[in-house]
Amino acid sequence: MARELIVSIDAMGGDAGPGIVITALLRVSQRHPEVRFILVGDETVLNELLSTHAKLRERVTVRHASERVSMEDKPGNVMRRGQNTSMWKTIECVKNKEAEVAVSAGNTGALMAVSMFQLRTIENISRPAIASIWPTLRGQSVVLDVGANVGATAEQLVEFAIMGEAFAHAILGLEKPTVGLLNVGTEELKGNDGVREAANILRNSNLPLAFHGFVEGNDIAEGTVDVVVTDGFTGNIALKTAEGTAKLVGQFLKRSLNRSLMGRIGAVIASGALMALRRRLDPRAANGGIFLGLGGVVVKSHGGTDAMGFAAALDMAITMARADINSRISADRAQLNLTMQAAAS
Amino acid sequence: MARELIVSIDAMGGDAGPGIVITALLRVSQRHPEVRFILVGDETVLNELLSTHAKLRERVTVRHASERVSMEDKPGNVMRRGQNTSMWKTIECVKNKEAEVAVSAGNTGALMAVSMFQLRTIENISRPAIASIWPTLRGQSVVLDVGANVGATAEQLVEFAIMGEAFAHAILGLEKPTVGLLNVGTEELKGNDGVREAANILRNSNLPLAFHGFVEGNDIAEGTVDVVVTDGFTGNIALKTAEGTAKLVGQFLKRSLNRSLMGRIGAVIASGALMALRRRLDPRAANGGIFLGLGGVVVKSHGGTDAMGFAAALDMAITMARADINSRISADRAQLNLTMQAAAS
Repeated sequence: MARELIVSIDAMGGDAGPGIVITALLRVSQRHPEVRFILVGDETVLNELLSTHAKLRERVTVRHASERVSMEDKPGNVMRRGQNTSMWKTIECVKNKEAEVAVSAGNTGALMAVSMFQLRTIENISRPAIASIWPTLRGQSVVLDVGANVGATAEQLVEFAIMGEAFAHAILGLEKPTVGLLNVGTEELKGNDGVREAANILRNSNLPLAFHGFVEGNDIAEGTVDVVVTDGFTGNIALKTAEGTAKLVGQFLKRSLNRSLMGRIGAVIASGALMALRRRLDPRAANGGIFLGLGGVVVKSHGGTDAMGFAAALDMAITMARADINSRISADRAQLNLTMQAAAS
Repeated sequence: MARELIVSIDAMGGDAGPGIVITALLRVSQRHPEVRFILVGDETVLNELLSTHAKLRERVTVRHASERVSMEDKPGNVMRRGQNTSMWKTIECVKNKEAEVAVSAGNTGALMAVSMFQLRTIENISRPAIASIWPTLRGQSVVLDVGANVGATAEQLVEFAIMGEAFAHAILGLEKPTVGLLNVGTEELKGNDGVREAANILRNSNLPLAFHGFVEGNDIAEGTVDVVVTDGFTGNIALKTAEGTAKLVGQFLKRSLNRSLMGRIGAVIASGALMALRRRLDPRAANGGIFLGLGGVVVKSHGGTDAMGFAAALDMAITMARADINSRISADRAQLNLTMQAAAS
């Protein structure tokens, strides 16, 4: 049996409230009988919700938090006055080593700020990043940063490469994940100073990392590399552009089929296949936005998700906690430091 | 009848060679009986290709160019030694006012460099941009810059807004196109310094332009605004990410349908609707990458296109030449200058 593990959960974080968290827990607790949970939020509400689930109840500790962070709260305000929120106390469990990993569906900016404040970053990592798993023609790839920062220096891009590679190794189970830098062309001279300098460092750093070189936007869906590295501004826009495009194509498909009788009949007959497609494109299936580079593991679930989506985030959290990716990141970061010092002297 | 117009065409620019250019011309010349063409390239080859099309032949002037620009040629080399290439001489026709507009399917970087060198930019416009027309849930939107530059200052982003607005007005036929700045969130404080400062200028500049504020990546496909403004690095990556995603969803659809008998039967019955979807997503239908901000009109066709795609680029060129968008851009740019001077003093 897998070793014991404790997950702290912000039960009040998502738009849908704590009900879906309990439903998700019922599923996940069956899949992972060795995992225990700290559920943070309004204790009256949570105890009431848990009262009809005796088996789950035994594995859950409820921790009271009188306040919650809303989607509109500014990260700065939460940092200053958020100590009594369920989000704060959820992260605090990881800080105090009561839990190995934290999950919240709350406000991304606030969650990142609160996590940074309490957990700091891994030594020598200057900035955390948010990674996202994308479906591709060949399987799955990791893209980061998709929004923790609004820019990145060359050295930070290299840190993202290190973190993304460690994540792909641990979570996608790839022995030697390939890493590409997102750019406007694949030739060495393309792009702005930041990506060119980052490529230079990655080529010459002796990092134990399979650097592929530059990739372009269409390479993400092609699955050209396992890890796509970019700054948080471009990555966030690429992610949301891709989501919007997938939705657009789905709508065009629906409209095309509805426009003719044959289309409607064909759609009914092929409904199983069309449902399979919908499931494949369902963002809830890969719902964990992963915070990398923090001194503890935090998984962000989509705020508007349902129980299925929250369960996927919990699964991701458990896998992450088991994998201990921070050790690999630390080792690689130390190697990068040596290279940078050698280059400077 | 519409007024006469002359289009200069780089017949040697695309991967497929001059054959598809002639096929495209046969179509376009029927749709536009008042347009004449200067066809630039190897005169022996072109005369031979035209010899079997007597009616078209009367409306075409062949101009000899002994060399051609390949897709691998570096823009800098073409600038220094490219005077005898078909690309150079095609742009030269616009410079010398022999033609109102130029079309080439050649190397984008070289075409932009050669166009900049010969045509310069519109007065006070510091940088040209490449605009692209995207299908959206509500119709079509214009996105720029998708790759003329690898970054943009705040003032350059505002220039892109002016150019994109003028283009949407002229080409999409919108009286008052709405303009959004691409960002990682819609609140005023989101994003990097560049986009925030650009938003500030757009809000306070008295430009005759309907500024919507910030939009996010998913807003492009939603059609939230008519014109989406971003720097050439992010825009290029967003464009190629969207293309890759559309292709991915199409592949997933095909795989889903092929996986079961019912899926295959449904696909046959709905084949008309599925073909309509394919046409809708066909990049050849909106093939003109539009160079904006130059002292003359240049349309870039996709290098790998066929006759249908090249014909779409020719149609775009004719519409652009008729619309005289450079006057609108000049007027707005002069207004921006006044605002910037007032702000500085």
